[in-house]
Amino acid sequence: MTTPTIKAPALEMMELLEELAAFSAPGPGISRLLYTPEWLRAQQFLQERMAALGMEVRLDEVGNVYGRFTGSQTAGKVILTGSHIDTVLNGGKYDGAYGIAAAITALHYLQQTFGQPLRTVEAVAFCEEEGSRFPLTFWGSGNVTGMYNGSEADSCADSRGITISSAMEACGLIHKPGKGPRREDIGAYVELHIEQGIVLEQAALEIGIVDAIAGQRRFQVKVGGTANHAGTTPMGLRRDALAGAAEMLLALEQAAVQTGDPLVATCGKLEASPGTPNVIPGEVQFTLDIRHSEAEQLERFCSGIQAHFERIAESRGLTLELTATLATTPAPMDEGLKGLLEEISQQQGRSFRTMVSGAGHDAQLFAPLCPTAMIFVPSRAGISHSPDEYSSPEELAAGLNLLTAILYELAYKES
Amino acid sequence: MTTPTIKAPALEMMELLEELAAFSAPGPGISRLLYTPEWLRAQQFLQERMAALGMEVRLDEVGNVYGRFTGSQTAGKVILTGSHIDTVLNGGKYDGAYGIAAAITALHYLQQTFGQPLRTVEAVAFCEEEGSRFPLTFWGSGNVTGMYNGSEADSCADSRGITISSAMEACGLIHKPGKGPRREDIGAYVELHIEQGIVLEQAALEIGIVDAIAGQRRFQVKVGGTANHAGTTPMGLRRDALAGAAEMLLALEQAAVQTGDPLVATCGKLEASPGTPNVIPGEVQFTLDIRHSEAEQLERFCSGIQAHFERIAESRGLTLELTATLATTPAPMDEGLKGLLEEISQQQGRSFRTMVSGAGHDAQLFAPLCPTAMIFVPSRAGISHSPDEYSSPEELAAGLNLLTAILYELAYKES
Repeated sequence: MTTPTIKAPALEMMELLEELAAFSAPGPGISRLLYTPEWLRAQQFLQERMAALGMEVRLDEVGNVYGRFTGSQTAGKVILTGSHIDTVLNGGKYDGAYGIAAAITALHYLQQTFGQPLRTVEAVAFCEEEGSRFPLTFWGSGNVTGMYNGSEADSCADSRGITISSAMEACGLIHKPGKGPRREDIGAYVELHIEQGIVLEQAALEIGIVDAIAGQRRFQVKVGGTANHAGTTPMGLRRDALAGAAEMLLALEQAAVQTGDPLVATCGKLEASPGTPNVIPGEVQFTLDIRHSEAEQLERFCSGIQAHFERIAESRGLTLELTATLATTPAPMDEGLKGLLEEISQQQGRSFRTMVSGAGHDAQLFAPLCPTAMIFVPSRAGISHSPDEYSSPEELAAGLNLLTAILYELAYKES
Repeated sequence: MTTPTIKAPALEMMELLEELAAFSAPGPGISRLLYTPEWLRAQQFLQERMAALGMEVRLDEVGNVYGRFTGSQTAGKVILTGSHIDTVLNGGKYDGAYGIAAAITALHYLQQTFGQPLRTVEAVAFCEEEGSRFPLTFWGSGNVTGMYNGSEADSCADSRGITISSAMEACGLIHKPGKGPRREDIGAYVELHIEQGIVLEQAALEIGIVDAIAGQRRFQVKVGGTANHAGTTPMGLRRDALAGAAEMLLALEQAAVQTGDPLVATCGKLEASPGTPNVIPGEVQFTLDIRHSEAEQLERFCSGIQAHFERIAESRGLTLELTATLATTPAPMDEGLKGLLEEISQQQGRSFRTMVSGAGHDAQLFAPLCPTAMIFVPSRAGISHSPDEYSSPEELAAGLNLLTAILYELAYKES
């Protein structure tokens, strides 16, 4: 590999990030929910900025924004890079926005430095990924990759009853069911993102090269016992749903630790009924979130834990219901692109590791369709979805340079 | 012991119970909260009924209702029997009301059958015990025994902001702080009550003779960890407050089972924050309710479990705060009266056991002041504080006959 020295302008990217951070609803951190006035202003700002940088700009029917430098070899497919513009409520200024700011900065720098690319490149600001306003996620990349076909827009409403269609209309967008923003011309997708975890910081590494985005299984678990008086019911005559749930959660943790990385298993939400200090809980409902980068191991763990829960329930005379609420398959990243990222990282003198992304990302929707790669930079204390989300300018610059270099390889090198 | 045959009129008691059940707010079961119109009508009804049965009737300043047959030996103290007229919201028709209906029926039967007692007897309908409207319990017996002095009436308000004083005024009651309804002339207190537990039913016994009313300790426990992304935080880098709480709850249960009856330990309420399926809980708050009939053992268990929780928190890098929210001391019942109840039960051919009351009762306030006894009859499936609360007429009649017989012993026998 012979790559020229890449020195992407990190300062420009940082300024763009700050400019994007200004588009937010009032309150702590950044709140830029889909199809809100602040969301619309951010996407309008990006269109203007990309146009000013000489890109061909396009807004698709659902509000994804593209900026393109057309390649000299017009026959090939598009090299796409970017991330999502929306945030969670009271989120940080890096999640999503970093990947967009870096994509624009990288493509503009390459065009300024090396001229017209061989292959067409595009920066993208997907309209939505977080699922923070409407009860669906990946509305941006999902409409591009065919996960959605637009029919969801009329049936899906936010907590105030406003449908996606109405919200789009208020933004001047009209989405007709059908092919819509679906694209079949994407030849590769590369996404740069903050890690949103603590792995890189703990290991004091600059770069994470994603092996795979973990598959995820979610369950709603209902444990049924008998609500009874806390004072008058001897220990031996109880069917305590919460004690049973506690045994299950401890078993879950032990099984996850025993299975080892990259498996993670979490109970994030638990409700005990009737929820009165002097009444033995007669019912407990809790959630399970289980992730692994390999489908078979994920499946095996879930079956194993279900059987374990059943034994616990049976031994305590409790009832048990497990309902699957979400199942995504692991998305392995492209081996070739991963190798390329490792090579460039070494060349750039970056400390790095390959790692599984436990969080979901737009990249997982492209992975089955085209060569896809994902790059992480450290998140301070692993904090994300919070106003405290932070990565240092140096960390962000390292990611930008790696992204720029791989885009050079993909768009400027003769294949 | 030579006691004449006691055949108290169970039918009259059952009719009185049904009449009392009619005084309820709308909705499932019986709702007769302190100083509500239905509560007032019930206490007025009892005054009229007791007067019609030839009792001297008295309503005290907080709304306790007494009906008296004055004894021929006017010098002695009063033999008091009864229970509380209030119910929980959507409660049953036996909790409290049974003890009142039985007291009136027993005293009237004795007076009709054996004439004027030697010692003065009184039936009482305490105004409040449950704590369902105002944030205090035992407002009736507490004012009689000196636990309260009336100063609470102005400072204590229900969920709509109505103080006890205002609520009393609306019922035509005026409580002046000071001695008020306090009595120092009670020579013995006997209370008949449904068990509100499953012990008698499980053992197929007719009568429970209470050894002691358990002391109770309540705690609010706060476990602090770090909220983090469920997908991006490896198992080894977590400080999961809910996993820690689960380990504590399991340890609590195991320690309670190991300690053995009559110790009971319960977590009835648990809240995990932020409470989102894909976020590791950073904080858990839960309640502890621990009861035992012996003060020293109760204390030892609480200290032991606190130390155990601290070890669990430390080993997981979690913070722990335990706040004591309630501490009542165990109330042993009078040995002499217990022996008398056992003797009569045998004579009446009843199956019985002595047992600890895990629930609180008015009797626990009298126990430190005068010889006090308490009798239980079975509760179907241990259910109480529910419209489904039920004890059969035969079970209720067995309790009535035992109560009547001990009142005969206390009030009609030469000592």
